[in-house]
Amino acid sequence: MIRKIVVMVAENIGMVVDMSKDGISRAVIKRLPRYYRYLGELMEDGIDKISSSDLSERMNVTASQIRQDLNNFGGFGQQGYGYNVEHLYQEIGKLLGVDKKHNMIIIGSGNLGQAIANYTNFERRGFVVTGLFDKNKELHGKIVRGIKVMPMEELKDFIKDNDIDIAALTLPKTEAVKIAELVVNYGVKAIWNFAHVDLRVPKGIVVENVHLSESLMMLSYNLTSTMHRGESS
Amino acid sequence: MIRKIVVMVAENIGMVVDMSKDGISRAVIKRLPRYYRYLGELMEDGIDKISSSDLSERMNVTASQIRQDLNNFGGFGQQGYGYNVEHLYQEIGKLLGVDKKHNMIIIGSGNLGQAIANYTNFERRGFVVTGLFDKNKELHGKIVRGIKVMPMEELKDFIKDNDIDIAALTLPKTEAVKIAELVVNYGVKAIWNFAHVDLRVPKGIVVENVHLSESLMMLSYNLTSTMHRGESS
Repeated sequence: MIRKIVVMVAENIGMVVDMSKDGISRAVIKRLPRYYRYLGELMEDGIDKISSSDLSERMNVTASQIRQDLNNFGGFGQQGYGYNVEHLYQEIGKLLGVDKKHNMIIIGSGNLGQAIANYTNFERRGFVVTGLFDKNKELHGKIVRGIKVMPMEELKDFIKDNDIDIAALTLPKTEAVKIAELVVNYGVKAIWNFAHVDLRVPKGIVVENVHLSESLMMLSYNLTSTMHRGESS
Repeated sequence: MIRKIVVMVAENIGMVVDMSKDGISRAVIKRLPRYYRYLGELMEDGIDKISSSDLSERMNVTASQIRQDLNNFGGFGQQGYGYNVEHLYQEIGKLLGVDKKHNMIIIGSGNLGQAIANYTNFERRGFVVTGLFDKNKELHGKIVRGIKVMPMEELKDFIKDNDIDIAALTLPKTEAVKIAELVVNYGVKAIWNFAHVDLRVPKGIVVENVHLSESLMMLSYNLTSTMHRGESS
């Protein structure tokens, strides 16, 4: 209730608070993969429990933020003991859905598509690239880390026969809109979009964007405002 | 003042409000590149003015959010007239620092590094890739879109001689930490980090991360929670 009032007041004075449908702010959800990464590294180092203050030091965020973030998901910590690393890792993994296998295809097999196909890291998190596609005939039959590049004509059957959840679109924006529509019709539930365009998809279909130009502009915004602060101080 | 109180109350009840040093929420700043993209497309379509409601329809956000966002930067709109597209485009461009030229190098010239070197879009926004580097001898001398891949030994002189602002790190996380330290010592002011590691840099140095695994986990989080909602409804 208080949460709702704060959001209302905040929005009223021009602040935008971005909440997910579960009532958890997207900022918190966005931090979960980072917790997951640090917990994974702790496990690799053989550390089986950690206090929020130790975790806070490693992650360079306040212990209070860590407690607040994890409270959104029921806590997982015990007073005076800290967090059980493996348990917390697994619980966050479940929230992120990386405890299950997801079959993924990549459409657009240029440098970027091939770079993604080559990341073995994704596979360790349950994202298995099972097919590469391209309209360019010269790429057909090429093998990237054991995965064959196929022509677009095989897309429909491949999605239906191979239980594909996710399509990564690493192609120009002029093609992405049309291809997104196609793969959704063929049964894909999630699109990982690298094209510099906003995709409109039916309800229930998930889109996550990697807009590299926008990331670069954020870099340049911060570079510019840092320089201005430097000049004026 | 009200803004500060709302942030305090929000933080007190466990909400995290992410504000930049200018007092503008990072969420607003993050939306600027998207405004910039839409305004650029309007200009390409020959449209020279637009109301916030028309812009809202195109961008699929509320007109009120558009007005609120742009008010953070002094508005730019005129009551009853709408926004002058080119003026707004240029003003946001200045805020984003894309009205100036930035020289960029790419360290790590595998598929991902080459993909970035091949984006002509970045150059149109003022980000000019002037050099590629790799420790792999087999890549030395290779030309990507007219840009030569050089050995790491030439990094220091190249940065000093070519007024390099930005280094994109497209290399494994084990190397990224060391290389980031190097390039900062050589005078680079901003790091565009694709390695799956958090870089600690001195004050005044800007880092923008593209963590692809984390983006993929967000996709999977949304896919998982969409499916759960589907099952329970």
